[in-house]
Amino acid sequence: MDAADQIRDANRAWAEAHFAGSAPRTPARHLVVVTCMDSRIDVFGAFGLTNGQAHIVRNAGGLITEDVLRSIALSQRKLGTVDVVIVQHTDCGMHHFDDPAFRRELAEQTGVAPHWDVVGFDDVDASVRRQVQAVAESPWLAAAGGVAGFVYDVDTGLLRQVEVIANPT
Amino acid sequence: MDAADQIRDANRAWAEAHFAGSAPRTPARHLVVVTCMDSRIDVFGAFGLTNGQAHIVRNAGGLITEDVLRSIALSQRKLGTVDVVIVQHTDCGMHHFDDPAFRRELAEQTGVAPHWDVVGFDDVDASVRRQVQAVAESPWLAAAGGVAGFVYDVDTGLLRQVEVIANPT
Repeated sequence: MDAADQIRDANRAWAEAHFAGSAPRTPARHLVVVTCMDSRIDVFGAFGLTNGQAHIVRNAGGLITEDVLRSIALSQRKLGTVDVVIVQHTDCGMHHFDDPAFRRELAEQTGVAPHWDVVGFDDVDASVRRQVQAVAESPWLAAAGGVAGFVYDVDTGLLRQVEVIANPT
Repeated sequence: MDAADQIRDANRAWAEAHFAGSAPRTPARHLVVVTCMDSRIDVFGAFGLTNGQAHIVRNAGGLITEDVLRSIALSQRKLGTVDVVIVQHTDCGMHHFDDPAFRRELAEQTGVAPHWDVVGFDDVDASVRRQVQAVAESPWLAAAGGVAGFVYDVDTGLLRQVEVIANPT
């Protein structure tokens, strides 16, 4: 499998030349970053993170699903993080995406219907605000932290801040 | 909110000096990487990826939940990816983690019970094999691709291959 071989070979060279060394399990910046799986987001580079600083959660869209809340809850309650930064982006595959049609397609083609209910969005700024709100309102998350929302421009590499709730309590 | 300010400032400097330029929405390597949210995994660096090459999905554990299957299904069926590489790691917070107890704790402390059912693991190699199997067996995913599983050592920066299914069909 070429993809596995490529990753293994690149990793060996990187570990020899660039591995930063051990770091504790609890993130040094007490931060969770939630963003999209999009291939054009170099999280460490673009957001200025280094080894051991922040948990990074990614899915299709950078949307606050229950699995993302599970990850943030575990991060805050068991691994000492406080703040949450959510980053959606321009030219996203979930932009104008018809998820109910996608679920019907999967059910018809495979005979197995998905349980998820994750809608796309038509306005990325409004979507970022909804995700920030979903985190700020989740009963499972710590009330002490701030929640911020950004849009990342995949054509300039720049973040634009959309929403900040300094303290959701 | 300091965390948001830090990321915004670091991003501005990075975009000016290091932004790689635009890339297409469809990943050039036709690859999805699934890994843990752990703060010690520099995905681009450690796995030799650059801008626009692979979708990257991350949650607590690097576990194949339905939200991860949603992301991979969308990636394969709408954005042209084929192969899946799953990377769990040493010293993971989901290692020996009692998720049923965590769910009870959340339900008792907040009055709202989680719906998820994502168990921890006692043997990371066995867990990687289970995740590879879950992807290989999902009816929603394309049969043509390979699925590989690795363990990343957070103290050496090295990947160790645990499982490869070159073609799940």
